[in-house]
Amino acid sequence: MPDRDLQPLDSFVVPRYADVATFMRVPRTDDLDGVDIGVFGVPSDSATFRGGTREGPAAIREASRAIRRVNPSTGVSPFDLANVADLGDAPVNVLDIPGSIAATEQFVRRLREHGVAPMAVGGDHSAALPVLRGLSEGSRQLGVLQFDSHADVQDEFFGQKDTHASLMRRAVEEELVDPHRVVQLGLRGTRFGDEDVQFGIDAGFTVITYDDYEEMGRAAAIERIREVLGDQPAYITYDVDGLDPSHAPGTAAREPGGLSMRDSQVILRSLSGLDVRGGDVCEVAPSLDPTGLTATNAANLLFEIVCLLAARR
Amino acid sequence: MPDRDLQPLDSFVVPRYADVATFMRVPRTDDLDGVDIGVFGVPSDSATFRGGTREGPAAIREASRAIRRVNPSTGVSPFDLANVADLGDAPVNVLDIPGSIAATEQFVRRLREHGVAPMAVGGDHSAALPVLRGLSEGSRQLGVLQFDSHADVQDEFFGQKDTHASLMRRAVEEELVDPHRVVQLGLRGTRFGDEDVQFGIDAGFTVITYDDYEEMGRAAAIERIREVLGDQPAYITYDVDGLDPSHAPGTAAREPGGLSMRDSQVILRSLSGLDVRGGDVCEVAPSLDPTGLTATNAANLLFEIVCLLAARR
Amino acid sequence: MPDRDLQPLDSFVVPRYADVATFMRVPRTDDLDGVDIGVFGVPSDSATFRGGTREGPAAIREASRAIRRVNPSTGVSPFDLANVADLGDAPVNVLDIPGSIAATEQFVRRLREHGVAPMAVGGDHSAALPVLRGLSEGSRQLGVLQFDSHADVQDEFFGQKDTHASLMRRAVEEELVDPHRVVQLGLRGTRFGDEDVQFGIDAGFTVITYDDYEEMGRAAAIERIREVLGDQPAYITYDVDGLDPSHAPGTAAREPGGLSMRDSQVILRSLSGLDVRGGDVCEVAPSLDPTGLTATNAANLLFEIVCLLAARR
Amino acid sequence: MPDRDLQPLDSFVVPRYADVATFMRVPRTDDLDGVDIGVFGVPSDSATFRGGTREGPAAIREASRAIRRVNPSTGVSPFDLANVADLGDAPVNVLDIPGSIAATEQFVRRLREHGVAPMAVGGDHSAALPVLRGLSEGSRQLGVLQFDSHADVQDEFFGQKDTHASLMRRAVEEELVDPHRVVQLGLRGTRFGDEDVQFGIDAGFTVITYDDYEEMGRAAAIERIREVLGDQPAYITYDVDGLDPSHAPGTAAREPGGLSMRDSQVILRSLSGLDVRGGDVCEVAPSLDPTGLTATNAANLLFEIVCLLAARR
Amino acid sequence: MPDRDLQPLDSFVVPRYADVATFMRVPRTDDLDGVDIGVFGVPSDSATFRGGTREGPAAIREASRAIRRVNPSTGVSPFDLANVADLGDAPVNVLDIPGSIAATEQFVRRLREHGVAPMAVGGDHSAALPVLRGLSEGSRQLGVLQFDSHADVQDEFFGQKDTHASLMRRAVEEELVDPHRVVQLGLRGTRFGDEDVQFGIDAGFTVITYDDYEEMGRAAAIERIREVLGDQPAYITYDVDGLDPSHAPGTAAREPGGLSMRDSQVILRSLSGLDVRGGDVCEVAPSLDPTGLTATNAANLLFEIVCLLAARR
Amino acid sequence: MPDRDLQPLDSFVVPRYADVATFMRVPRTDDLDGVDIGVFGVPSDSATFRGGTREGPAAIREASRAIRRVNPSTGVSPFDLANVADLGDAPVNVLDIPGSIAATEQFVRRLREHGVAPMAVGGDHSAALPVLRGLSEGSRQLGVLQFDSHADVQDEFFGQKDTHASLMRRAVEEELVDPHRVVQLGLRGTRFGDEDVQFGIDAGFTVITYDDYEEMGRAAAIERIREVLGDQPAYITYDVDGLDPSHAPGTAAREPGGLSMRDSQVILRSLSGLDVRGGDVCEVAPSLDPTGLTATNAANLLFEIVCLLAARR
Repeated sequence: MPDRDLQPLDSFVVPRYADVATFMRVPRTDDLDGVDIGVFGVPSDSATFRGGTREGPAAIREASRAIRRVNPSTGVSPFDLANVADLGDAPVNVLDIPGSIAATEQFVRRLREHGVAPMAVGGDHSAALPVLRGLSEGSRQLGVLQFDSHADVQDEFFGQKDTHASLMRRAVEEELVDPHRVVQLGLRGTRFGDEDVQFGIDAGFTVITYDDYEEMGRAAAIERIREVLGDQPAYITYDVDGLDPSHAPGTAAREPGGLSMRDSQVILRSLSGLDVRGGDVCEVAPSLDPTGLTATNAANLLFEIVCLLAARR
Repeated sequence: MPDRDLQPLDSFVVPRYADVATFMRVPRTDDLDGVDIGVFGVPSDSATFRGGTREGPAAIREASRAIRRVNPSTGVSPFDLANVADLGDAPVNVLDIPGSIAATEQFVRRLREHGVAPMAVGGDHSAALPVLRGLSEGSRQLGVLQFDSHADVQDEFFGQKDTHASLMRRAVEEELVDPHRVVQLGLRGTRFGDEDVQFGIDAGFTVITYDDYEEMGRAAAIERIREVLGDQPAYITYDVDGLDPSHAPGTAAREPGGLSMRDSQVILRSLSGLDVRGGDVCEVAPSLDPTGLTATNAANLLFEIVCLLAARR
Repeated sequence: MPDRDLQPLDSFVVPRYADVATFMRVPRTDDLDGVDIGVFGVPSDSATFRGGTREGPAAIREASRAIRRVNPSTGVSPFDLANVADLGDAPVNVLDIPGSIAATEQFVRRLREHGVAPMAVGGDHSAALPVLRGLSEGSRQLGVLQFDSHADVQDEFFGQKDTHASLMRRAVEEELVDPHRVVQLGLRGTRFGDEDVQFGIDAGFTVITYDDYEEMGRAAAIERIREVLGDQPAYITYDVDGLDPSHAPGTAAREPGGLSMRDSQVILRSLSGLDVRGGDVCEVAPSLDPTGLTATNAANLLFEIVCLLAARR
Repeated sequence: MPDRDLQPLDSFVVPRYADVATFMRVPRTDDLDGVDIGVFGVPSDSATFRGGTREGPAAIREASRAIRRVNPSTGVSPFDLANVADLGDAPVNVLDIPGSIAATEQFVRRLREHGVAPMAVGGDHSAALPVLRGLSEGSRQLGVLQFDSHADVQDEFFGQKDTHASLMRRAVEEELVDPHRVVQLGLRGTRFGDEDVQFGIDAGFTVITYDDYEEMGRAAAIERIREVLGDQPAYITYDVDGLDPSHAPGTAAREPGGLSMRDSQVILRSLSGLDVRGGDVCEVAPSLDPTGLTATNAANLLFEIVCLLAARR
Repeated sequence: MPDRDLQPLDSFVVPRYADVATFMRVPRTDDLDGVDIGVFGVPSDSATFRGGTREGPAAIREASRAIRRVNPSTGVSPFDLANVADLGDAPVNVLDIPGSIAATEQFVRRLREHGVAPMAVGGDHSAALPVLRGLSEGSRQLGVLQFDSHADVQDEFFGQKDTHASLMRRAVEEELVDPHRVVQLGLRGTRFGDEDVQFGIDAGFTVITYDDYEEMGRAAAIERIREVLGDQPAYITYDVDGLDPSHAPGTAAREPGGLSMRDSQVILRSLSGLDVRGGDVCEVAPSLDPTGLTATNAANLLFEIVCLLAARR
Repeated sequence: MPDRDLQPLDSFVVPRYADVATFMRVPRTDDLDGVDIGVFGVPSDSATFRGGTREGPAAIREASRAIRRVNPSTGVSPFDLANVADLGDAPVNVLDIPGSIAATEQFVRRLREHGVAPMAVGGDHSAALPVLRGLSEGSRQLGVLQFDSHADVQDEFFGQKDTHASLMRRAVEEELVDPHRVVQLGLRGTRFGDEDVQFGIDAGFTVITYDDYEEMGRAAAIERIREVLGDQPAYITYDVDGLDPSHAPGTAAREPGGLSMRDSQVILRSLSGLDVRGGDVCEVAPSLDPTGLTATNAANLLFEIVCLLAARR
């Protein structure tokens, strides 16, 4: 296995509680040369039921101190396969939501131009939209696996188009994604009405509600996901409210009856070999969870997606 | 579907974090005319291991801001089927436990007289007793589905008869319920002795311990519950310590190894068509859970029971 | 003393922990007729260092359950002097900051038209700007007493003009306030540079930093405040970061070395007789303070300002 | 200095975080022979705005692990002067409030009969009443120094006579105390009306509101307290809501603008030489304060009063 | 069933919230005569990612107030079968890690000499090593069932030999345990490398990772455990990070995707009849979990192991 | 004012919640060339009453995001006067306390050799000892201003010599400091005995207990401090338990009745012109304070000491 230049701090030299916190303790750099996977924060914080996602990237950096090097199930060691860097945060300005979304798109576009796979850490789920915009080469290029309790397919939300509640609709309309290669996993939670989910169904999304998931079982769900995503480029977006709130109390829209971390890990680990091009973990609001569990779990999800990005190479 | 007069605040006009918190954002009224389902607090707070349930109704009102309109699994939209109102709190006085129980019974009796289905939000589980007294027309009218980790069939508790630990025994002795139509689900937790559960077994309760539940499986449990409750009037009482403490840390008597929210949701959703006449959610002690998860989960359980009350109509 | 129609819930009938929480337990109404003082939330939540102020009004409503009727130092009982109502929340939409500011201004203008004194509960401190706009009749009508650790006189903040960091500059520029009748009390905290405070000094504000306050003493500060505000219309804005963080940990911009609640109470109580026309309490971010102390203190500050509004009548 | 039999665990042998927690790590015994000062819990928990005081004694035992042996200001080492024991908890039953008050009185009477000075740890403030009943030999024997934000002189509270809100009135009516030797220190907080304080004033209490305290200064207040208490038997009751909430967030009735711990320590230390016969610290509700500060401060107040009880001997 | 001298406090006489907290409310004694099972703290606190395990024994004592007398699944009432005592804490000195380990070994050896089965409550997991040393009679006497997310088989950790990360290796090397009778259950979590687990595999441990566990199912896992442990002396060590973090957020090394409390209870309950000689529950860091759930769950695990120790007799 | 190379992140470009957290957002570097002031963590965590100080540096880095550039009272802008860098953490290994102390001394010695003023962030207070060793050129070179509630002059603590409880004694014995130029400020808290303070008094320390401080007043205390420290090299050590616990609940040894942040700020600001060569802030245990107030206050104290280090240049 080739040595990579960028390595996390050695935890047997610098204990994990020590020194500055970067994502998984990889180097913080602005120089994209040689970087394979760029992890960065998108501290957006706008329209969710509760505020505080702007603190998500910082909290997940801290929590990710605990991550070691090797995936215990797949054996993948991403830092042996790829140069992983912490690129800081996209230039979000919480006072200018449209401007922030545009700037984040530019930030990601620059990554794409340098061949850096984007791994975003939100921020509210609106963060995923500019990542898709910056990453997608259009023509319905990307498939998406969305872990979520909500479908995020509203046309608008409180009069706005680019929000955490409408991102999947925008992604379809802008042909960033191929709706026939989109899987929404874990949907549940009370609804305002059918419009909460209908657009995606009509567009061709594969919608696996939590009811469906339980009925079909995890293995069948995995098979279905692999089938839908196929071997074309794919993106993984993880809204932590996809998790059962016992696993993620620190998020605005807690919807009981959801995925466990175990489910999530097994599903993500089963996707090796797919052409995963980018991903995100969103909606952690640290101050809502004084145990810090949500950030710990988000850091582990981040690691799983980074393993997929690294293994694809 | 008929329009109903009483509607929750429109969350696309008044954001869910805004304005005064009532249960599920329905109108707060004292006028029972036209009300189909009356949600009210019973802020009792007496003999549990830890105090603080008097704050339960307030915390669940706040948490229930997040509830939307439609049940994602059954499609039931209770606010389309019934006029649901927040009736404030029963006149509990924590210094006068017997007086409070009597006053709560009167409060519920008035609801019955107006044809309003009672949906109580505790308070400690002693709250369920006066609701049953006020609701039951005697002659062992009511069947009961009790989610709980304890059977609550002590004869007395610290010298008192009407407590959270003895309510199911009183309900039998007073012929409020038909013991052959009582299901106790989720019992577990260390015991003082056999007397913790024996009365109910002897009286004819269907006792499904968590051990039983796991062995028979959820589907069989549901079948058994439907069979026992039959098509006669039924009541649902949910002591949140029936949940595994990872789902409900904010309660006095945390008993590990219990029901998940998912289990609870599926079971409650499977009961549509039953003649559910009233219900309660009890034992949330908000200050024991700084994540607020317990109140969030209780608010969702409240919604599920309200769906049953509305769908029955 | 005349009886007033609108009275808080009687705490000897409905215990303070019971029933729906409104500000100080006064009636929630949208009907402005006969209302003298309208308390309302402004759940804005934008550009502060930490998010979460959208939850401020709800948390302060809950905390204000503890407020009784009579001011222990002045003897003022505002509910005997004025009809005080909870008017719900101004129509804030956290996705549309300019729109929210405009809508809040309209909300307050309507109050002014009905002769209702506005008492706003934030939300971040940007909430104060539309209240001043809606309340002020222009021509530098209002004097202001601002409790704060920051002067809020930036020209812009991250490219925006109407923010929590620039509101006092806007208020001067728009001639909402008379700069010679503005007192800023408690300023301290590290600075980006002189521009953090200079505009106000140049405009004629009376700036009493915490250093000044300590040196001159509370009595002299009070005298100075009364002198500056005079007998013309005045407005009181309380950013809770004016308090020492030991009194208000639940706010984004905690600046140690500040005012105590005692100082604040004595100063506010000393202003009776002034022509106070409106006020606000802002910047409580409840999820940053799991003890709930910040909301409790904010509720008490709210009561003090309401006493002034009521006593002025 | 005489050696005493009962000594706290030696913190240089058993670290303070280790072993079972008793009050200040003194021996737990039921044998009153040879005991000079008996510290005991009274886990009452009834009518306060928030529940949870039943957990007070346990939390203060834990927090008091940090207490060492010697008072840093007075040099008093109570464990050198007196045999101090942890006597467990009075037989409180939160379901039977009158019974608990009677049983606590009996518990204290037994102490008096054995010449043991009672030092109670609440529990809500109703705990102080049976201590006074058990300790007082009638005929208005005792003077009282009451640290509190409320006067506790209601005739009844929600229909009950023996409550945390009426204890000082009962103590006068039952001639347990000499009203001319009662000092109430720190009163403040909004009031329901004059009846919140009037009975004591009429009865002859020396009422030092926080306003009075600030105006006269600490030294004068101490002089006044010593003058009023004189050299006759006295009792000290400390309701932790007498402290400013920044020092005691973990209590139901937080009233900003109150005493600091420093004030309290200096006042208590100034009372050496008085004939202090017993005392209590009440109203800690641990679950309201996840920092644990309130219990830490209560443990230090407990130590100060124990120093007075020991030094008197 | 024979009466035993040492009994927990009767919870119908002394409520569970009252009096001094010992483990499960059994008597605190230093006299080993007649004691069958000695529960004691080992407040070690050294090399974990987060500090604070020194507070584990105290927190678990408090949480174990809630434990009653009878196991609801097995019917075992340990206090009817054995004299169970709280022996205080082993003489740990967090400044002298090697000395503390030696002293703890001596503490346990004394228990062995008196025929007292040791039940340790950590402290970090290094606590288990001296318990094994003190308990084992050498010659690979003991089998071990280890619940854990990590294998703890490093050769050294930061240059030290006797740590929480190397204890199972030491136990093999010192022939305290028979590696062919060791089961490690629940291993998962990211790894530094193969060396995190390899030693045990090579030595003959039965390693059941969480992946293995899920694949084989609980029943098969139990069968395997019973088979490996056989009817020879066995020891049970429970590192609470073996639990999924939703069940144990209060520990340093949270590894998502782990055992539930239900799994743990069923497995432990299935081991009755085995020759269990001692056990421990480790790695609770209470201050990381303000809900207290981790300590509650640890107290229940403690009870399960005590049931096994008692039933074996 | 000269421009300096090393500047904090510009908070008008990168919002303060964004990007990686270093101390006060200055650059993280290992290259000492050109660095004037090196801020570094010392994540020691050993013998205090409660664990968790290893997390201090990380938490203070996060909290120090809020620090701006200019001291509001003195006008000093340290980043204009000096190149301030975050040097990461000293190579502490919590399993090897003596080794860590030696390694930290080496770390500081290297700074001294490069002319970098050391500003340490603990960790427990034992961190200060190796900083003094590394910084001092012997011959009783350094004066010390110690903010603390304890004198830290024990000969040993649990058998160890180099601990948080004995550091000032070691510093004298090793002639690192001139005892006649040592001021201990704020001492208070219960004592084990006279030995808690006596060594320093005998050695010539100026001991200003909190009693003394209050009696003499702040101005006189400042005068005394300046007089004792004189114009020779001085060091400032701030144990956050010197603060009143209402300002610093997140520390192991909370001693009520102490310094406020205001007192601390004014005293530190009054020392400009002194030859301050280094400093530290210690004893923050973040997990004990879910409000984060302690870390916020520690970050502000850090800034004040950095201002002194910069202004001295």
